[in-house]
Amino acid sequence: MNASQINISNNDHAEGGTASVATDTRIEHDCIGELAVPADAYWGIHTQRAIANFPVSGTTDGDHPELVKAYATVKRACAAANAELGLISDDKAAAIEQACLEIEHGGLADQFPVDVLQGGAGTSANMNMNEVIANRALELTGHTRGDYEFIHPNDHVNRSQSTNDTYPAACKLAIVDALHPLIAATETLRRSFHDLADRHANDVKLGRTQLQDAVPMTFGQEFHTFASFLKLDMAAMERLVPELTVLNLGATAIGTGICADLRFRKAATEHLARITGLPVTAAPDPLAAMTDMSAYIAASACLKNLAIHLKKAADDLRLLNSGPRAGFGDLTLPARQAGSSIMPAKVNPVIPECVDQCCFTVFGMDVTVNWAAAEGQLQLNAFDPLIVHEILDGMRLMTNAMDTFRLNCIDGIIVDIEAGRHHAQRSPAISAALNDTIGYEAASAVAAEAVTSGRTIREVAAERTTINDEELDRLLDPIALSRSLGQTCRERR
Amino acid sequence: MNASQINISNNDHAEGGTASVATDTRIEHDCIGELAVPADAYWGIHTQRAIANFPVSGTTDGDHPELVKAYATVKRACAAANAELGLISDDKAAAIEQACLEIEHGGLADQFPVDVLQGGAGTSANMNMNEVIANRALELTGHTRGDYEFIHPNDHVNRSQSTNDTYPAACKLAIVDALHPLIAATETLRRSFHDLADRHANDVKLGRTQLQDAVPMTFGQEFHTFASFLKLDMAAMERLVPELTVLNLGATAIGTGICADLRFRKAATEHLARITGLPVTAAPDPLAAMTDMSAYIAASACLKNLAIHLKKAADDLRLLNSGPRAGFGDLTLPARQAGSSIMPAKVNPVIPECVDQCCFTVFGMDVTVNWAAAEGQLQLNAFDPLIVHEILDGMRLMTNAMDTFRLNCIDGIIVDIEAGRHHAQRSPAISAALNDTIGYEAASAVAAEAVTSGRTIREVAAERTTINDEELDRLLDPIALSRSLGQTCRERR
Amino acid sequence: MNASQINISNNDHAEGGTASVATDTRIEHDCIGELAVPADAYWGIHTQRAIANFPVSGTTDGDHPELVKAYATVKRACAAANAELGLISDDKAAAIEQACLEIEHGGLADQFPVDVLQGGAGTSANMNMNEVIANRALELTGHTRGDYEFIHPNDHVNRSQSTNDTYPAACKLAIVDALHPLIAATETLRRSFHDLADRHANDVKLGRTQLQDAVPMTFGQEFHTFASFLKLDMAAMERLVPELTVLNLGATAIGTGICADLRFRKAATEHLARITGLPVTAAPDPLAAMTDMSAYIAASACLKNLAIHLKKAADDLRLLNSGPRAGFGDLTLPARQAGSSIMPAKVNPVIPECVDQCCFTVFGMDVTVNWAAAEGQLQLNAFDPLIVHEILDGMRLMTNAMDTFRLNCIDGIIVDIEAGRHHAQRSPAISAALNDTIGYEAASAVAAEAVTSGRTIREVAAERTTINDEELDRLLDPIALSRSLGQTCRERR
Amino acid sequence: MNASQINISNNDHAEGGTASVATDTRIEHDCIGELAVPADAYWGIHTQRAIANFPVSGTTDGDHPELVKAYATVKRACAAANAELGLISDDKAAAIEQACLEIEHGGLADQFPVDVLQGGAGTSANMNMNEVIANRALELTGHTRGDYEFIHPNDHVNRSQSTNDTYPAACKLAIVDALHPLIAATETLRRSFHDLADRHANDVKLGRTQLQDAVPMTFGQEFHTFASFLKLDMAAMERLVPELTVLNLGATAIGTGICADLRFRKAATEHLARITGLPVTAAPDPLAAMTDMSAYIAASACLKNLAIHLKKAADDLRLLNSGPRAGFGDLTLPARQAGSSIMPAKVNPVIPECVDQCCFTVFGMDVTVNWAAAEGQLQLNAFDPLIVHEILDGMRLMTNAMDTFRLNCIDGIIVDIEAGRHHAQRSPAISAALNDTIGYEAASAVAAEAVTSGRTIREVAAERTTINDEELDRLLDPIALSRSLGQTCRERR
Repeated sequence: MNASQINISNNDHAEGGTASVATDTRIEHDCIGELAVPADAYWGIHTQRAIANFPVSGTTDGDHPELVKAYATVKRACAAANAELGLISDDKAAAIEQACLEIEHGGLADQFPVDVLQGGAGTSANMNMNEVIANRALELTGHTRGDYEFIHPNDHVNRSQSTNDTYPAACKLAIVDALHPLIAATETLRRSFHDLADRHANDVKLGRTQLQDAVPMTFGQEFHTFASFLKLDMAAMERLVPELTVLNLGATAIGTGICADLRFRKAATEHLARITGLPVTAAPDPLAAMTDMSAYIAASACLKNLAIHLKKAADDLRLLNSGPRAGFGDLTLPARQAGSSIMPAKVNPVIPECVDQCCFTVFGMDVTVNWAAAEGQLQLNAFDPLIVHEILDGMRLMTNAMDTFRLNCIDGIIVDIEAGRHHAQRSPAISAALNDTIGYEAASAVAAEAVTSGRTIREVAAERTTINDEELDRLLDPIALSRSLGQTCRERR
Repeated sequence: MNASQINISNNDHAEGGTASVATDTRIEHDCIGELAVPADAYWGIHTQRAIANFPVSGTTDGDHPELVKAYATVKRACAAANAELGLISDDKAAAIEQACLEIEHGGLADQFPVDVLQGGAGTSANMNMNEVIANRALELTGHTRGDYEFIHPNDHVNRSQSTNDTYPAACKLAIVDALHPLIAATETLRRSFHDLADRHANDVKLGRTQLQDAVPMTFGQEFHTFASFLKLDMAAMERLVPELTVLNLGATAIGTGICADLRFRKAATEHLARITGLPVTAAPDPLAAMTDMSAYIAASACLKNLAIHLKKAADDLRLLNSGPRAGFGDLTLPARQAGSSIMPAKVNPVIPECVDQCCFTVFGMDVTVNWAAAEGQLQLNAFDPLIVHEILDGMRLMTNAMDTFRLNCIDGIIVDIEAGRHHAQRSPAISAALNDTIGYEAASAVAAEAVTSGRTIREVAAERTTINDEELDRLLDPIALSRSLGQTCRERR
Repeated sequence: MNASQINISNNDHAEGGTASVATDTRIEHDCIGELAVPADAYWGIHTQRAIANFPVSGTTDGDHPELVKAYATVKRACAAANAELGLISDDKAAAIEQACLEIEHGGLADQFPVDVLQGGAGTSANMNMNEVIANRALELTGHTRGDYEFIHPNDHVNRSQSTNDTYPAACKLAIVDALHPLIAATETLRRSFHDLADRHANDVKLGRTQLQDAVPMTFGQEFHTFASFLKLDMAAMERLVPELTVLNLGATAIGTGICADLRFRKAATEHLARITGLPVTAAPDPLAAMTDMSAYIAASACLKNLAIHLKKAADDLRLLNSGPRAGFGDLTLPARQAGSSIMPAKVNPVIPECVDQCCFTVFGMDVTVNWAAAEGQLQLNAFDPLIVHEILDGMRLMTNAMDTFRLNCIDGIIVDIEAGRHHAQRSPAISAALNDTIGYEAASAVAAEAVTSGRTIREVAAERTTINDEELDRLLDPIALSRSLGQTCRERR
Repeated sequence: MNASQINISNNDHAEGGTASVATDTRIEHDCIGELAVPADAYWGIHTQRAIANFPVSGTTDGDHPELVKAYATVKRACAAANAELGLISDDKAAAIEQACLEIEHGGLADQFPVDVLQGGAGTSANMNMNEVIANRALELTGHTRGDYEFIHPNDHVNRSQSTNDTYPAACKLAIVDALHPLIAATETLRRSFHDLADRHANDVKLGRTQLQDAVPMTFGQEFHTFASFLKLDMAAMERLVPELTVLNLGATAIGTGICADLRFRKAATEHLARITGLPVTAAPDPLAAMTDMSAYIAASACLKNLAIHLKKAADDLRLLNSGPRAGFGDLTLPARQAGSSIMPAKVNPVIPECVDQCCFTVFGMDVTVNWAAAEGQLQLNAFDPLIVHEILDGMRLMTNAMDTFRLNCIDGIIVDIEAGRHHAQRSPAISAALNDTIGYEAASAVAAEAVTSGRTIREVAAERTTINDEELDRLLDPIALSRSLGQTCRERR
């Protein structure tokens, strides 16, 4: 948020056309009747009604600044298109665009008070935006707030538009915007995992499958896995952008473009692409686009997959950190706080547990999005407001979860190099390295004997097979066995 | 929240033991090391660490006042039990109990700043509570905050307790507490539906199954259905209480009661029952109770079922309100706001749509709760914090959704009595009333003819069957046909 | 299935009224037209159409024998009620009841070929049942199949009934029926856990919270926990019965009881109670009952909670069995099969993994049931068929999962008593036992020293505190510490 | 399934090396001990144990022929690679490849009897495949089944392989294979929607948003929407292929390639690409690939999105078909069966209801897949078997649902052209067309007056505004208003 911008706005307000506000409210009207609106509000009657209608979650559109900003951007592109096509006058367009810009820069951030779970398919968000832009534009041009003769929320700000085409556009661009901090957090965490992997590229440890001792690998490989997950996630996030930028401007109410000049679709789409620098395109079938939720489902699935990866990392670290004495004990997570109100000096993996809970939240989010996306009817899905709220919330949660995961956990991990090597050498499953030489069945016998007797594979093999010591050294060398397909993890980075 | 209580607390604070605070912080220590805590904070080092560890959701324990209040109640009961058993001195207990009472009355509400998605199975919430109580008790007894010699957060406030037994107790009591507004909102909405039903007890309309015209009923029955749903939900909520009040006090760390006097379990449970007036009991198997999430699953399922019922009512009203000209048109929901930024005078069912979105949120909540409940390991489930947050949020959302549903929608419904009667009489399915007289197959022929010709069943039956007019009047009388099993809905209320 | 019963049926068929079947089909008709039905089929045209309409899942109503049986029972009760009230003649009723009985005993099991995911809210299942009963009754009374003059599927078998009241009745009774094997499997598994617990009631082990070493307990307590879970589940299953036996007979199409004698509701309900021995009651609001899915949601939640408990047991056992050398190693699950195609002698916890997958399936089931239950519209929810299919499948899966869990895993568990004791004594968290004596902070210092130095709490405490050896023996005695609240698990059984 | 192929196999069996089978079983052994296997079984001891271990779902690997076929293909590629690298002899490889080919062609289809919900991460499926191939190869080369000296399931068939690399490869290729019928069904249904759209490209109807009368459109646009959805789905399915063909051959047990020649990865990947014609590649990070479930999550999300689209179409058709007299009545779905056992001649939208239930099943599937995908631990996710089973089941269900949707519903839809036009002209929302001329507020007044008075917008506008008749004709022409952004739907096809 640009604070100075807001001050300017407020100054304008104080000194501008509203100087005559003696009472606390002004009266506005709509097709239902009249209603008092706070005199100093930039919003109007439609917003005022919506405030009263949806007091459910306590979270407002304004709590999603990406959404407010993206909607102002959409409105600015539409105003530019309207001006270009001569549908509104240049002075009106200029004032509208200026108002939009202020909002995009964080101004008037407290003017979007409608609950995010609003009914009406986003109409309240749209009218709220139209009203705030109109009143700010009126103010900028020396008119009084609420005096919509010169600039009308519907006839001018919303010109050639409907909620049904602009709101989903704003929602999708908001998600694109929220991808930036999400990708940044993912990349930073990925680098932390990589650095950790690099530091332990040659430290051998035991691999475990199905929680059973398996064959040797390195700590580097273990951490590199998490980095690789995040690399996949970033690529998936990038792939969302083209899907999220297929928009439907100019389709208006139901996709037929009623009330919109036919040239508007192209013009608005191009202006939006120009302003945002994004590959914005117009949906091929504007009626289908009105109810197609594919981009949201894809974004939600992408977020869910990220959560699956993070949960995997968090859970693995909880396992590897288990102990200190009667667990896996491969590594120690940094002690972030006392772990128990009763067991002295117990330290718990609280950060991974926090991450897990964020992931479970995202798993529920995906189901809520499924519900909202699958309940569209005929020419509209009225549940975009819930979808965008859930996804933006989920993105913020994942962003924050990755930041605390990195700062408060990953960057402080201490590996127990000795334990790793010890475990790797003592695993019966290392007998797999003998398969080529003596066959699976003979190797099984060696392994079974090792398990029963408590000895190592090397000890039993030396006794029970004809493989000589040198060959055993070579076959059972843990660092060679863990050299993943001939490469170190550093080489695969 | 009791505002005067808070002022007193603050006054105490300002004038009390902290008067000498010249610096801005005080230093506290724990098993990890030292940390500066804001000098005026009632919380201590454990809370301070937790603030830094979990900056993920932005929602704090303090945002769930039921949870804060319930935890203070649990602590008060434990202090009373400790005092009764001579485990802490009477003056310490008195100070602790007084501090608890203040919190229960809404005092110190801003002292619970830890994120609700905290890792650590609630340890931070517990230590936060222990610290605030200890420091407030210290203050009340003329000591300095942070000077834990006299009253220690662990040794005295947490005496005979663990997070693992007290936190779930607080969570469950918080849910019980949140049942009050939820039940109140349910009951008020139920009465609205009942009143509406009573006003239309004899107004005939068409019943529809699978969206196809079926047989006559009354508007009274339609609305009574929604009231009946809510009656079932209230009974289900009441049934949760005994399950939610099976607690595990005295079980401490893992259920074995380590560190707790054996008599403590009984004493604490009884004190808690006395204080709350609830049927609090001790879990039969204290180790199993540590990881049994049944009560949460039941609460979540109960909430989900309420959401299913509300969604049904919201969806039905959206259908019945469809039109105004090319829909079902049985009734008109009150116009709450202009429905479209582009289609003049269009009014949409925004309140039911808002309700639907709240319900979809609860459906996702149930899945998140499932995740958290199913990921316990060995002697603890670390994910109670997420569960209680989700359920309390869901309860609040349902409470608010029902309030706006009632105020902004149900209470203003206008039934189209004429349309109802008209539809009822013209339904081909009313031919079912002839089954007894002429058999299913002959009645089918009459119905098929009616559908094809566009005539009513009465018209076709008069022509094609030998049933006379008087008998047809009797057989096809819609009010008789809709007299549900001989009763009006009023009689079944 | 009663094979002899089937043979009788088939003999009757072969020698009875259908002896003249020279062609392969017979022609039946309905309101849509005519259709050929296999001459030897007991089903009729409605079933025949449904076979063609719903070839989606490949699972048929007949694959849920509980459903077929329960529906026949409902039909028998209705026939008895109709006869009692003089609505159908005694000879017709007798034939119908006899046909029902045969089906209840497993006869004609191959006559229910409609896909379980049928549309139509169960109408096909109802008509299938009506047709099979009618044709079998015709056969029993010397008539020809398809000759519905004497006994008509709709006018006589379905008399006073609708799909909308009888199908849900059958679904709910089928679930009640499927509770028997489910409860039996739960009880048997519970006893296995109990036996295991009893065998190890005094074998000390380490308790772990958040995967970190905590304080001592016994293996008995560990296994008793699982038994306690199942005890809770069985109680929950029993509590389902009253809810599942609130039925809606006589409510017919939409709850108004159209086409049904007013006395029928009471009579049919009583006959059904008499026949089944269940506490069958009539729903207070018959219209609400038509779309209330509460009983299904409760059943699904109960099943989900059982799955959560089983997953917990399976996951805990996987953890405790981890190793053999670099894991928790508290116990060994029986080797059921070679665990790897490449790692010789590796043995994996395949049974718990199988159980887990069954649980995940049930978690998805719960979501599917949520969808179906929440998509009812106006006077009917058309998705009962999916709900009952999912729940019956889930119940069978849980039943089978518990059986293999018990037989192939639990009953062969070998506890490592030495490891348990060793771990318990070496846990730093055992320092909690010193809290009372030296306070939490001093105990923390002892624990921290123990962790750092690798020594035991006892060793450090002996050196760093003034507690004498005898007292230390008493305070740190693991068996005393694990004596859960003064009781052994056996005493709490 | 290629029946002749099977016969050959059986003949080979009957006449081949097993001619001496006098007893019913043969004895095999593994690291656990000995076990009798049916003498005529191609499977061996590992399969035999698995049959007993997992009797839970009743569905076997063999019930997913795509999986069996794909696994045989993977084994064939591996054998070719082993031969190429000289790791097994050419004659062994030839026999193995021949056995694989037979299975790929549908032979030995009854030899895969292990439950799909098997624990063990697919080890049983792998060993089952290894054993069947080995025994068939033995037979082909004149050896006796069970005589593994010449060709051993592990040492030769499984050479250079592990379950952990080959089973996921088979699972993913099976999904790719199942995409063919799914895409075919999608394309055929899409064409049906297109044909329907083309037939009604110029038939005007009313668009509805939020179930309220909105502005005009055409039936062509309505149906074209569904076609557009499916086009998106097909593109999404195609995009799955590259993700599903990133495989991990040669990574063996945990990704380090233990037991595998370093050249094997490249060779096996290339052979598999050659055999399948698919863009098979090797995963960049073989350890990460071992537990990365991204491709499954993507496939599940794709399937879910398809289900959302199908549900939308099914639900819309149920709404548009509502009536016949007191509903939307825009069209009539073909009558597929009598709709009620009690309401004569009632016809219900049973096919869309069936489709809906299939979609709800897929929504639950997605949650189950989420569970399985998110529960991997350390170097392996053991729950691939559940995932592939769920996805293949979901794909088959969607395939079948689309087929019945098309054949039994879409292709028989009758549009009510008159009703469409009538509704379109009478909608008050058509006043939007006046916005440009008289402004939103004046248009609102016209619309409000029309709603109140029951007149059309045209009638009120003629009276209350100065717009002349000719201009009104132009502005309110429904076909012009529905000309979506200047194009007909045919042009956008």
